[in-house]
Amino acid sequence: MNSRRDFIEKLTAPFLAIPFLRNDEQNDNSEIKHQNFEGPILRVAIMGLGSYGSRVAEAMKDCTKAKLTGVISGTPSKIQTWQSKYNIPEKNCYNYENFDAIKDNPDIDAVYIITPNALHKDHAIRVAKAGKHVICEKPMALNAKEGEQMIAACKKAGVKLLVGYRMHFEPKTLEVIRMRKDGELGKVMFFQGLAGFRIGDPTQWRLNKQLAGGGSMMDIGIYAVNGARYMVGEEPAWVTAQETKTDKIKFKEGVDETITFQLGFPGGATASCLSTYAMNGLDKFYLNCEKGFAEMQPSTGYGPIKGRTNKGELTQEHRTHQTVQMEEMADIILNNKQPVVPVNGEEGLKDLKIIDAIYTAIKTGKKQSLSL
Amino acid sequence: MNSRRDFIEKLTAPFLAIPFLRNDEQNDNSEIKHQNFEGPILRVAIMGLGSYGSRVAEAMKDCTKAKLTGVISGTPSKIQTWQSKYNIPEKNCYNYENFDAIKDNPDIDAVYIITPNALHKDHAIRVAKAGKHVICEKPMALNAKEGEQMIAACKKAGVKLLVGYRMHFEPKTLEVIRMRKDGELGKVMFFQGLAGFRIGDPTQWRLNKQLAGGGSMMDIGIYAVNGARYMVGEEPAWVTAQETKTDKIKFKEGVDETITFQLGFPGGATASCLSTYAMNGLDKFYLNCEKGFAEMQPSTGYGPIKGRTNKGELTQEHRTHQTVQMEEMADIILNNKQPVVPVNGEEGLKDLKIIDAIYTAIKTGKKQSLSL
Repeated sequence: MNSRRDFIEKLTAPFLAIPFLRNDEQNDNSEIKHQNFEGPILRVAIMGLGSYGSRVAEAMKDCTKAKLTGVISGTPSKIQTWQSKYNIPEKNCYNYENFDAIKDNPDIDAVYIITPNALHKDHAIRVAKAGKHVICEKPMALNAKEGEQMIAACKKAGVKLLVGYRMHFEPKTLEVIRMRKDGELGKVMFFQGLAGFRIGDPTQWRLNKQLAGGGSMMDIGIYAVNGARYMVGEEPAWVTAQETKTDKIKFKEGVDETITFQLGFPGGATASCLSTYAMNGLDKFYLNCEKGFAEMQPSTGYGPIKGRTNKGELTQEHRTHQTVQMEEMADIILNNKQPVVPVNGEEGLKDLKIIDAIYTAIKTGKKQSLSL
Repeated sequence: MNSRRDFIEKLTAPFLAIPFLRNDEQNDNSEIKHQNFEGPILRVAIMGLGSYGSRVAEAMKDCTKAKLTGVISGTPSKIQTWQSKYNIPEKNCYNYENFDAIKDNPDIDAVYIITPNALHKDHAIRVAKAGKHVICEKPMALNAKEGEQMIAACKKAGVKLLVGYRMHFEPKTLEVIRMRKDGELGKVMFFQGLAGFRIGDPTQWRLNKQLAGGGSMMDIGIYAVNGARYMVGEEPAWVTAQETKTDKIKFKEGVDETITFQLGFPGGATASCLSTYAMNGLDKFYLNCEKGFAEMQPSTGYGPIKGRTNKGELTQEHRTHQTVQMEEMADIILNNKQPVVPVNGEEGLKDLKIIDAIYTAIKTGKKQSLSL
């Protein structure tokens, strides 16, 4: 199976949907992997069958410790397609009205919430109340207040709450973090994170304040916010931010197009970041330290991360991020594994607190103190 | 002579002082170049015989249109060394007490002021009053008010005032500017300028508020300020800035260690920049546009600039920046040539206005409007 798996891993996502990979082959493949694995398997339902949900489902076919066993969607035709594609029985299919009944379904351990941002909080709380572990795409919620409600609900229900920080498991990223932790880079002085793309369809939910809770910052800027924290290895003490809007028709009130923001860290490091929906292909991290540096470009995209440090090129092997993430999250949920960089609700909450402060800094024009 | 000149150009500055290049050989070489050139020659006195003054003098040996004919220094031993090295007659040597007498010296057309920042204004005004053209190292002065006084004095005296913006003549920089002007990059969206180095000797004038007028921003941050303007091709409408200081002993009150600043441009572009005396080797420009990009690293250092655009690597030939600068400045002063990017007093003043606003933005914590 190895050569076949390698082949699939080399395919880019759009190719994975082409017909010559017949459904039964895919299912066989998936089944065999799970059969070879002797430990417990995390059985996951995906909520929200959009493009990112599809990407996660495809990636999970290569997981040995996690398996897609259910779906939640408001679109019956999507459910049908997924059922046949991933061999999901009717009893594991839910819509947004009835998914609380997942409580009584022994085939599902966790629900991966991949719905528009504004729905995360209510969906997560309902999943928690149903006694299932919650994996929630980032941003975890619209703001810190909602994030706190989610954390409280999961705590009360005795379920785990994880946020979809796939970069926390990415090998090149982890190597830079290791170098920094082991003192190989020396004192951290400066982080730069540029995160953005030119957004297309103006009618999509990401450009709807009610559903997205903001604009580029919620969707792509959060990579720079989160990246600043895991690259610098401290929590920021202050933030300043500036907004620029060139297209007020596409980017309506409350939907940010371009934001520059700066973070100050207790150790004296500064971060200077950009979040944008108006520029092509911005995906760069740069960490400057007293004894070394790390440069990554792409730094957070779905494909292979590329980068170099003062020691040379980063050569850690690429595996599909979402495959690695789901394998690791299975270990976190089932075996209480502690990841190098947390992916729990508290981690998600810190990013939300910073994003709240960024929006406040823009509104007031004033530096915002942070206590994370 | 060409092969010899090529050889000298390939040498790095420290090597230029080694003994096997005997003084008489150097002078012969210099003389022959000027003899071959039939147009007028700009005869320059250098004021301030420190390390950068030496670099300019060395570079001028390869000029055909400009020639070092005089020196102004407070250190007699330096004058002696320079006299023998550059064949400068006694009558063209001055100190800071008597250099107003340069007025009556027909061998000197212009004075290149390379003294500490705080002295630029008075020195420039005295040179102007002596009826000689002024070339002044950047920053032109400590603040915009001083800059305006210098401009007024030169105007009144009928002499030209030029600021040492060597990058305005650098071929790779000019190619990016050409691409941007010709629309090959499309609309400019984002500029990033990182400029800094780890400063050594804590007793040097650059770390003395009275002489430097500030810290990293006056000395190296100005490259990002100026670069933002010539790369974006507009004048910024606002600026925000944040200061970080990790070493309060080395960087005393009024001497900035690290500053991040942001500029907003009328066309919607944003610049995000860093100025620092605390980090090694920060010399990066990045211009992101709708149709293309330019990356330069090093972007403003004394050696060859390296960079690439969406069209590929920048391959324009490197010549010693200061040689090119002095050739071009000779043409500007003697032949009224108009450079692609201005190097006049008004250009220097714009940077000073931005730097003034950066310091005010830090002090007040508020966005500063600019009208340049």
